Order: sequence, then C-alpha cells, then structure tokens
Amino acid sequence: MDPAEPIDLRSDTVTAPTPAMRKAMADAEVADDVLDRDPTMRELEERVAGLLGATDALWTPTGSMANLIALMSRLGRGESFLAPLGAHVLDFELGTAAWLAGGMPRPLPHDGGPGKVTPHAVRRAAVDTADHGSYAALRPALLCLENTHNSAGGTVTAPEEHASVAAAARAARLSVHLDGARLWNAAVALGVPPGALTVGADTVAVCLSKGLGAPVGSVVAGSAEFTEQARRLRKMLGGGVRQGGVMAAAGLVALEDVDRLAEDHALATTLAAGLRERGWRVREPQTNIVLLDVADLRGTIAAFREAGVRAGAIAGKLRLMTHRDVSDRHIAAALERIGEVGPASTGSPGAPPAQFGRSRDVPEQAPRTALG
Amino acid sequence: MDPAEPIDLRSDTVTAPTPAMRKAMADAEVADDVLDRDPTMRELEERVAGLLGATDALWTPTGSMANLIALMSRLGRGESFLAPLGAHVLDFELGTAAWLAGGMPRPLPHDGGPGKVTPHAVRRAAVDTADHGSYAALRPALLCLENTHNSAGGTVTAPEEHASVAAAARAARLSVHLDGARLWNAAVALGVPPGALTVGADTVAVCLSKGLGAPVGSVVAGSAEFTEQARRLRKMLGGGVRQGGVMAAAGLVALEDVDRLAEDHALATTLAAGLRERGWRVREPQTNIVLLDVADLRGTIAAFREAGVRAGAIAGKLRLMTHRDVSDRHIAAALERIGEVGPASTGSPGAPPAQFGRSRDVPEQAPRTALG
Amino acid sequence: MDPAEPIDLRSDTVTAPTPAMRKAMADAEVADDVLDRDPTMRELEERVAGLLGATDALWTPTGSMANLIALMSRLGRGESFLAPLGAHVLDFELGTAAWLAGGMPRPLPHDGGPGKVTPHAVRRAAVDTADHGSYAALRPALLCLENTHNSAGGTVTAPEEHASVAAAARAARLSVHLDGARLWNAAVALGVPPGALTVGADTVAVCLSKGLGAPVGSVVAGSAEFTEQARRLRKMLGGGVRQGGVMAAAGLVALEDVDRLAEDHALATTLAAGLRERGWRVREPQTNIVLLDVADLRGTIAAFREAGVRAGAIAGKLRLMTHRDVSDRHIAAALERIGEVGPASTGSPGAPPAQFGRSRDVPEQAPRTALG
Amino acid sequence: MDPAEPIDLRSDTVTAPTPAMRKAMADAEVADDVLDRDPTMRELEERVAGLLGATDALWTPTGSMANLIALMSRLGRGESFLAPLGAHVLDFELGTAAWLAGGMPRPLPHDGGPGKVTPHAVRRAAVDTADHGSYAALRPALLCLENTHNSAGGTVTAPEEHASVAAAARAARLSVHLDGARLWNAAVALGVPPGALTVGADTVAVCLSKGLGAPVGSVVAGSAEFTEQARRLRKMLGGGVRQGGVMAAAGLVALEDVDRLAEDHALATTLAAGLRERGWRVREPQTNIVLLDVADLRGTIAAFREAGVRAGAIAGKLRLMTHRDVSDRHIAAALERIGEVGPASTGSPGAPPAQFGRSRDVPEQAPRTALG
Repeated sequence: MDPAEPIDLRSDTVTAPTPAMRKAMADAEVADDVLDRDPTMRELEERVAGLLGATDALWTPTGSMANLIALMSRLGRGESFLAPLGAHVLDFELGTAAWLAGGMPRPLPHDGGPGKVTPHAVRRAAVDTADHGSYAALRPALLCLENTHNSAGGTVTAPEEHASVAAAARAARLSVHLDGARLWNAAVALGVPPGALTVGADTVAVCLSKGLGAPVGSVVAGSAEFTEQARRLRKMLGGGVRQGGVMAAAGLVALEDVDRLAEDHALATTLAAGLRERGWRVREPQTNIVLLDVADLRGTIAAFREAGVRAGAIAGKLRLMTHRDVSDRHIAAALERIGEVGPASTGSPGAPPAQFGRSRDVPEQAPRTALG
Repeated sequence: MDPAEPIDLRSDTVTAPTPAMRKAMADAEVADDVLDRDPTMRELEERVAGLLGATDALWTPTGSMANLIALMSRLGRGESFLAPLGAHVLDFELGTAAWLAGGMPRPLPHDGGPGKVTPHAVRRAAVDTADHGSYAALRPALLCLENTHNSAGGTVTAPEEHASVAAAARAARLSVHLDGARLWNAAVALGVPPGALTVGADTVAVCLSKGLGAPVGSVVAGSAEFTEQARRLRKMLGGGVRQGGVMAAAGLVALEDVDRLAEDHALATTLAAGLRERGWRVREPQTNIVLLDVADLRGTIAAFREAGVRAGAIAGKLRLMTHRDVSDRHIAAALERIGEVGPASTGSPGAPPAQFGRSRDVPEQAPRTALG
Repeated sequence: MDPAEPIDLRSDTVTAPTPAMRKAMADAEVADDVLDRDPTMRELEERVAGLLGATDALWTPTGSMANLIALMSRLGRGESFLAPLGAHVLDFELGTAAWLAGGMPRPLPHDGGPGKVTPHAVRRAAVDTADHGSYAALRPALLCLENTHNSAGGTVTAPEEHASVAAAARAARLSVHLDGARLWNAAVALGVPPGALTVGADTVAVCLSKGLGAPVGSVVAGSAEFTEQARRLRKMLGGGVRQGGVMAAAGLVALEDVDRLAEDHALATTLAAGLRERGWRVREPQTNIVLLDVADLRGTIAAFREAGVRAGAIAGKLRLMTHRDVSDRHIAAALERIGEVGPASTGSPGAPPAQFGRSRDVPEQAPRTALG
Repeated sequence: MDPAEPIDLRSDTVTAPTPAMRKAMADAEVADDVLDRDPTMRELEERVAGLLGATDALWTPTGSMANLIALMSRLGRGESFLAPLGAHVLDFELGTAAWLAGGMPRPLPHDGGPGKVTPHAVRRAAVDTADHGSYAALRPALLCLENTHNSAGGTVTAPEEHASVAAAARAARLSVHLDGARLWNAAVALGVPPGALTVGADTVAVCLSKGLGAPVGSVVAGSAEFTEQARRLRKMLGGGVRQGGVMAAAGLVALEDVDRLAEDHALATTLAAGLRERGWRVREPQTNIVLLDVADLRGTIAAFREAGVRAGAIAGKLRLMTHRDVSDRHIAAALERIGEVGPASTGSPGAPPAQFGRSRDVPEQAPRTALG
C-alpha cells in the first residue's frame, strides 16, 4: 500500500459506486416520478418491499428522510415515542423527530444488551404513560427500533428478540418503526433473510448507500396506505425527485451483493483482534463497526489521522468501520499504522469498559456526529 | 369531619381562592395589558422579579405557558435540551418542549439524588454532544431544572447544589431555565429566600396557583430582553389577556403568605409517618408531596376514593399532596380512612422501594397525568 | 369632562370590569378545571353554547387562543384555509394559523362587500385547488369567516349571507370556523339572536372582553367531540387554568347585557356623522367601529392624541371604537377635540375612499396592530 | 410520427437525461458529501454560484427543497413573507413555507403585469405591516419572487424590473429570495446572463431538471454564511446525500446547453400561433409555457389525451410546455391532433381572456398540481 494514502475507516458511507453501478446508472430506464412513476424506482421499491416482507415501499434520497417520513406519518402533537438510547432518530437527525415529526421522545436504556431493549421495558414505558387516561396526558404512539444499532457498535438484534419487542409494543397499541439503515448487516451476521427481522414493524427504513455501496438512496417500506402518505410527505420535505431511476439503478445493483457484507464483518473481527493484541480496549464487533474506549477521544482520532488511519467518534467512543472499499491489505496496514500510535500514548486507562447502557446511573450519551 | 366529605389530596392545585384574594380581585386596578400595561399585573411582575432576583418578569395564565415561553425563547431547530428524568417539561406538557419549542430532549438520570442531577452529568451530556462540531450535529442549548421536582416527590435542591449545576451548564454554554412551579416550597423547606435558588438561571417560572392558592396565574422571569420577547411569545400562544389585573391581584395576596407552606410540609410529614406506621411504603417527604409505592396503582387509588380520600398518580407512584385547604383534622381523618383500606388489601409488596432514578437499568418512567 | 382626561377610542378592549362583574368574580363558585371542571366555567360554557346553537363550548383566556384551537383542530400539514383579506387570523395573530395550526392561507377578496366573501368566491377557491386530485396537491380544508369583520370596519354579515357562504364551503367539503370576536355586535346590529349567525359553522369563537366588557376571556364552541379535542389543545398552548371560574363569572355577567351594544353602535353613528360634518372621510359604521381615510396615518393619530383623543390604526385606516366606557358626553367632547385638529391639517386628500377590497388591482393590506 | 405515441407537453420536467449526461454520471468523480465534500457537487455548486453572481451555492435534490431551505433560513415565528399570487412557494409546495418555514404569507396581486409585482406594491405591503411597531405585530421579513413565473404562464421579469422590486424590498428591510426554477428560460428569452436577473436577491434557487434536462437536482445560492446554514437545513430535511456527484455531473452537462432553451421558446410560439389559428384562446407565451383558457378544463385535458396530446392544468388554465424531448415534428403533430378536438367541442367561451391577477375583484386562484 502507498503509505501516503490514508485508510478511511470513518464510515461505510464513504464507499464509491462500483463500475457495475455506474453502468446501470448510465443505462437506467427513467420517467418523471412526480407526474407518473419512474420505472426503475418502482422496480427498486418493489424489490425492497419484497425483501422486507412489506406490501410497498418508497425511495428516498437519504435514510434520515426515510426515518422522518415514517415518524411523521405516525406521530402527532401530544404524542410520544420510545427509542433505545443513542438511536439515530434521537441523536443524529438534528432533532427532527421532535420538532418536525412532533413526537416527544422517551429514550429507553439498553436493558436487553448493547443496542437492545426488552419487551418488559417497552411495556413498562407504554403502560406507565398510557395508564392514566387523562385528557391532558402525553400519549405514547410509536416504538422506534434500530438494527443494527449504530452508536452501540453495530449490534445485532435477533429475529425472536425483535419480534417479542415489537409484539409488546403492538400489544400496548404502539406502532413500530424499524430504522434498518444497516439491517442488511444484521441479516448477514445472523444468516437470516432481512424479512425475518421486520416482523411486527409497521414501517422499515433501509439504506442502499452504506455497506451496500450505492452512491445515494434509501427506501422506506410499509403498507400501501403508508406509502401513499409517504409519497406526499416526501414531496413536502423536498424529496420528490423526477428521473430518480438513475439512482435507483445503482441501488438495484447494490442489492445483488448483500452477502458481500460478510467480508466487512470478517475484516472488523480481524481489526478488533489486532487492536486488542496491541493493547486497545475494544468492544467485540458484531458486524462492521469497531468501537474503542479511549481516554482522549479527540487526541486519539488526531493521532490516528497522523498515522494514516481515518477514524470517527460516536457515543463517546472511537469508531472504525469496515466497508467495500477496504480489504485485508488495508486492515493489515491500518493495524500497523495504529501500532505506531499505541494505546499508551493516548492515555487509554486500564479499567474494563462499561457495557453500553449499563453504567450504574448515568445513561450513555451519544455524541452528535454526521457519521451516519 | 363530615364522613361524606371527601378529603382531596390529589394536588395543591385544588385550593380555592381565599376571601382576601377574592376581595383583592374585586378591587383590583386594571387596564388593557395588550395596548398599555395592566398596573396590577405590572406590580405582580415586579414583585416576583424582585423575589427571584431577576430584572423583569411576565404574568402568564399557567405554569405550562411560562415554561413553554422560556423554552421557545431559547431553543431552535437542531438544538437539544437537558432535563432531569420525569421533569414537567418532559412528561406533563403534552410534548410542547419538543414540537413547539423545537428542542430534542435529553433526559438526565437523577444521579444527584431524587429529582437532582450533578454538574458532572450536565458536563458530560453537554460535552459529549458538543465536542464534535460537525455542521450536522444536534447542538445542546439549554438545561431545564425543576425545584421542587414534582414527579420525584417534591424533592428539594439546595442553593449550592443548584448553583453548581447551573454553573456547569453555563460553562458548557448552555442556557439555564428553572421550572420553579413549587420553588416557594423549596425556599420554605430550606429556610432561604427564593432568590437564593435561582443563581445562574437565565429564566425562572413560578406558579401562584399551587401551594400559594391563587386561582389562576404564573410568572416567568428573566432579563428585560427576555421579557420583551416573552410578551410577544405569550401573544402568539394566546396568553395576551386584557385586564389581567383581576387575577394578578390574587397573586399579590398569595405572595404575602408564602411562609404558610411550612404548614403543608408539616402535614405531609405527619401523613407520611402515619402511613408508614400503617404499613405503607412511603418516601419521606421533603415538602408537601407524599409518594407511596403500591403494587396496584389504579386499584389503590380507587380504594382510597371509596374510603373518602382522593389521591393521584405520578411516575408510577400514588401521590398525596397537602395544601392550604387541608388541616391537621383532615390529615387525621385521611389516615383513619386509609387505615380501613390497609396496605395488604392493595397487594403492596414487601420489597424495599427503589430510589428514584437509581434502579439498575430501567430509568423511572413518569406517567402522564394532569395533576400539575 | 375634564379636558386633561384623554378619551380612549383605540379599542373596545380597554373597558374595565363593572362593579357587578367584580362582585361576581369575588363570589364565584370555583373548582380545579384541569382535574375536574370548574362549575362557573361550565355554566358559562353551556350558556354560550346555547346562545350560539352549539352542542358544547370551552373557555379560553383570549380570542386568539380560541381561534387557534379551532384552526389547530381542523388543519394539518399540506392543507390550506380560506379567509377574507384582513381577517384577524391572517393579520393579527402573529401568523400562528400558518406555523402553528399548519395551514397555508388563501386570502379571499371582499367580493361580497366590505368584510364579506361570496359563495361563488369560496366555490371557486375550493374547486380550483381541489379539482386536480394530485397526491402532491395542497388541499383546502377550512373556511374561516369573521363577523363582524374588524379590519374592514366592523362590518356585518347577515344570516342569509353567512349561511349561503357556509353552505358553499360545506358543499366543497371545507370545514367552517367563524371568528365571532364581535359576533354580539353583529347580532345586535341585525336584531337577530347570535345563533342565527352561526348556521353551518363547525366552530365559533366569541369574546367576552371586547364590547361585553369582561376583563378576560373568550369561548370557542362546537361539537362535543370538538370541545374534547379543544380542551387538550388548550392545555398544550398553556391555557389550562385551574379556578377559572373567577373570570367566567364576569363573563356570565357580561352576557346579561349584550343588548347594551346598541348604545355603542349609536355612538359610532353619531361620531361618524360628526366627523363627516367636520370634513373627514369616514366610512359609515355598521357597528361600533369608525374608520377614517387619512393621508398621514401616523401623524393624524399623534395629532388626535395631542388633542386628547386616543385612536388606533388598522388596514391603513385610522380607527375609532365606541365602547361601554364612553358615553354621549365623551363622543361630543371627542368631536370637539378632533375639530381642533381638522382634516386639512392632516393632509386628508379629496379623492373618494375606495371600497375595501375593491381597489382595482392591489388588495388592501391590513397593518399589524395589537388592537384586537 | 407514430400516431400511437402520445406527445407529452405536461411539463418540461418529463425530459430524460441525454447520452452525454448519462456518460458524465457514469464517469463522475465522487466522495462522501456529508463527511467531506463531493468534488463534482462542489464543481457544480461553484459553477452555478458564478453564473448567478453569488458567493456560494449548495446542491439540493429538488427545487422545492431549495426554496424551502431559503425560506427556513430567513423566516421565523411571527414573521410574514410577500410573494406574487400563484407563486410556487404559495401553491405548489404543500404549504411548507407556512408550517415548516414558519412564515405567514401575504400574496401580492400581479400589478406589474402577469407574474409581476411592482415596487409600489412591495413598499405598500411592507410599510403597511411594519409601520405600527407593536410588540404583537406580525413582521414582514421576506419577499419571494419567481422568474419565470410558472402559473402566470412562464412570464419573464426583466433585469430592471427585478432590480427595482428587489431594491424596494431591501429598502423596506425585507430579505429577497428568487425562485428561479426557470431562471434560465428568463435569461435566454431576454438575451441576458442569468446573473443579470439576481441583483438584490439574498438567495436564488435554480433547477437543473426542468428545461435543462438533468434527471435530478437543483441549487440554492447565496452568501457563504447562508450556504453554511443551508447545508445544515438540508441535512435536517433529509437532503444530505453522500456521493451526489453522480447527479451533479449531469447538472454540469446540462449547464453547457442553456442556450438550447431558445428552441423550446420558438416551439411554444409556433404552438401558440397554431392553436390561435384553430380558434383556441391562447395567452401569448413568453418562454416555453402555453396557457389556454378553456371552459371545461378537466374535459379538455381528457379530450387532448384521447387525441394523443398530454396537457396539464395550472391556475385554472390548460398548460402545454415545450421541452428538450419535443421538436418541430412533435409540435406539428400535436397541432394536428388537437385540431381534431377543436375549441368548440370543449365549450370554450368567446369572451376575451382576463389578464392574470387583473380580474375585477377575484384574484386568480392557482390550482394545486404537481406539475412543477
């Protein structure tokens, strides 16, 4: 590897489109999606709906818009929603769930393990708040889950865990939205089809632009009634593009290659092992995200950068992500470069890492970044 | 006592205006407060500003509007605010802090004891989120404190505790709002003037209609620049009344009698002791709020009602409040009546009560009521 | 009259409560209206509902909140509402109909005469906008009428006019809200009961604090389903007061005296005639509002003030209002004082006044004031 | 021409990307525009900023988002904005200018000719509303112009007209936003550079996806301070795409070919002349939009469609638009096909068409469509 070339592990969003995607974009059949429907967008939407076990789906420019549309369609003034601490909708979408979708959030601790909540916690939060029936009560209306959970370290919720939490929410008359920006990673890590992870959800958002590598685009899936409303909301937010088939075409190519994510996960495991060997306090990755506990977050990121490795920060941790544009060779080089930094030089303390969301009395606060 | 007369301990908001207040209302000097200023409202506003150590103040119809105005004046899209779990602005104001004031809330656990947060927690939440400086980051802008903290059981924050938390917030470039709906209770319990409890706050909301017994009205205090903006916001929200002096007059009378709250506190202590003797799991009251841990909240409230005692619910607890319209005699009668219910009959479990906000992994969820 | 005492004709909102109102306030039976219902508020609400021919009604602190609640209950994102140019909800409520109730306004010209729209205009606006049925179309949802129309000069819409416009709206599937802040004036001017002016309206707002003279308070009426929702919205906006019966009591007294408004109207006619004699360009008053066309609005108001007469401005006109606290004597003195100013001195032009909303190509723009 | 092939004149948004655009998209250099900046997006942004005489610019997925960002950056609660009747921000963006940007709109009649307002009207609207200075007054903050004005028929505002209106607004302390979705058409029709049409504007939105033919994308230009804020707002709305360079590349190609719009304009003139000859009531096109006054709008559109010509509707008129994907041949065929329909069959009345915004007392109401 060229030692002058930085290895970019900040996010899986940095991936460039593949030649096959570029060709598909150049060849895409398109039409005005506002006046009619764009055929390639429709093909993508139907493909994703099928993969997720949903009736219908709608393309959006970003995952943030996909989540926002789902929340706007369910939430109103005087309603609240539940979401695990550190959820993307809570910490990384500029507060739009609150001021634009209109919901007062109730963050739930990760009592089911990192990134995960239990049916008990959902029941408790929903019952506590719904029980009193006053005309003046804030009403819980929605549970928003996230799989994999980004700020908890790409943690995976298994089908039965997801289903039982969703069922608890539905029993408490909550709608369920699943932020599946990296649902593909969860499915591959678990060896199940993505549709196995959406049971009980009313709406699901997935991204084509993260590990899958498409340059632009996400999809939000749900009932036909939902997508009709969603199309209107997308127009409101300024996401009603015309010949979006050029982007959808890249998304269709990306979907052919979902299993490739296993390579990212393997690389993350290699990276984590190498870092641990070198004395770093590493959380064992479940997918493509490696979190490090470091004493001086800002300083360590700068030291990494100096050494030729780009890292990000999330939830007070240093974050390294593997993705399509890095290989064995990059990971080996990255470990070598980081080795020159060394945990000692960054003042990494010896205490064992606290499990996310399990600290005695202070819930982890996820920092705000645009890392996606 | 007439055994048929229910003893109403649901809230200190149930108090009727005193004869002195009624006379003051009838005699009040008034003017059109929208076109000019109402002289009695101004007198009240200046009196409260003085008591709180603020430059200026503004009358509002309710404490909810006072809080909302303060939050609207400080928060914007893309900003977040910190508040202790169970805060009134989080759980009891229909989510307006989120959808109307525009802030994404970050609830803080009570790591400083029931109803209280520490400077450390504030620093951590503010630093974590502000550290990264991305253009796309949610920005923490405000800390909202509550003294006494209603849903934690009327708990009191002492001057030095308040000041150190407010200072931590200011050092982190957060504005500070103090929801002092029952600040009078805190001041009386501590034996300090209310102004000793507002150090470092930009804005303070206080109510005249709870323990003080005025029929209607709250006040929000701050700088002259703030009250100018607040007056405009009050007009937007529909709180720009005309001859409001009739209500302000009752507020002025109420302020003459703040020390009387010590009686409510003493009654709460008597009530709590009596309940404990009778086998109930009682949190020791710090002011006029007595919380009971009961297994069947709904059932126990019904049983109390049947026995002639009206109780409320908050944060999953049964709540009893003492106030101006109950005396020794009422409390003795209430204990007698409740004695006929008995903790056993409500299935109250034997396990010791968890401290609020200290449960191992599930933060207390405050139920939504309109109890005020 | 004491020549040093200014005669205040800025608005009928300046009236002070009468001794009877003050006594009623002092004697009012009250209760906590949030937890239970305040009996005097309920009495007032039921009285007003009956007068307006509505099923139920709800007290609010101001007319602005009454209108806002009605609009919030009907309007959503992606919807528009129709209202006559210069309507209070368009120009005098800080834009809350747009940003808070969520409606895009479509002002209608006064094609039915000053302050009035025709069924044709409503049909046209509603059909034009609803006809196309695109998923991305703004949808007309509500017509908001105003009787009397303040900025047009207190103009009156007769029962049959109102009913035909409301029917046109309903036929076009619009809800109808009537801003009846001065509906009492319209009813008295027409010699009909107020309920004759609400036919076809879903919701009606009326004020007790303008010509009727109560110090504080308005009422919004509609179906029982509406008032249930309205009570929740009132709590959101910070209008959920506790012992509001003290204010409602004054409102009940005010309602006993509605016919008294005929005196205000007679005084306005006297005032207008006197001004016309003295060379001013006066719009013939229909109720208690006299509008003058003057060349230098600001200067004329200042000159009046200097002479001892307080005037306001609205829709680019000088406004004088008669009310309970002025009598024959005041009007005579006012004419004398204004006589010293003289129309010439203010540069009043000789051209005949344009009819409101009928100017060739520029709709009248109502200035923003807080005159109410 | 294949008689079975419909000729689509609904909108210039239906154009498919050219081979050159497709190639550019396939070859585009890209990067993560959220974390870093995408180089091709930056190239496009700088190119457009240069063309418009602005300091900086920002890519957006749609023109609606470009307008919305500009309005959100300028408007706040309690503020109003002026815009010509029928403006896209008023009638075709789902009311977001009101409920999301927070501005109460004040539509201005077209007193400067179709689609145009005069400095006098702006001054009057701004002065009337700002004059009184009450703390409770709605404050005019922004003028939003549109060039060409879509619903008025693609009408052109000349540089001196634009500049004088913008100057009047600035003198009245209003910001100025120019919705230039079809500014390119105005520039070509006038034979001036686009930068000649932006004088005095704070922000300008332009589209690459209408006459220019790019599949997706718009740009909003302004000061560097504005674009910094705009980037944040774009992220909020869900427009923060990653490798957007693939779309920007098509935009760069589109910009090479702006002069081609003259062909669209010539075709529109041909189409209008042919229709007039055939007895239709046609408004003389100034650019690429031909409006027909028809008695039965819905029926005529259906009849056209039956005959093989797709037409749209806007502002109560039938709309035909020329664009890159139609040629002489298509227009000739369209005229032939429409000839078979005939104006008589649609009941087109003989009365001369009223000039837009000049009807005696009813301003034209633009229908809501998604025609763009």
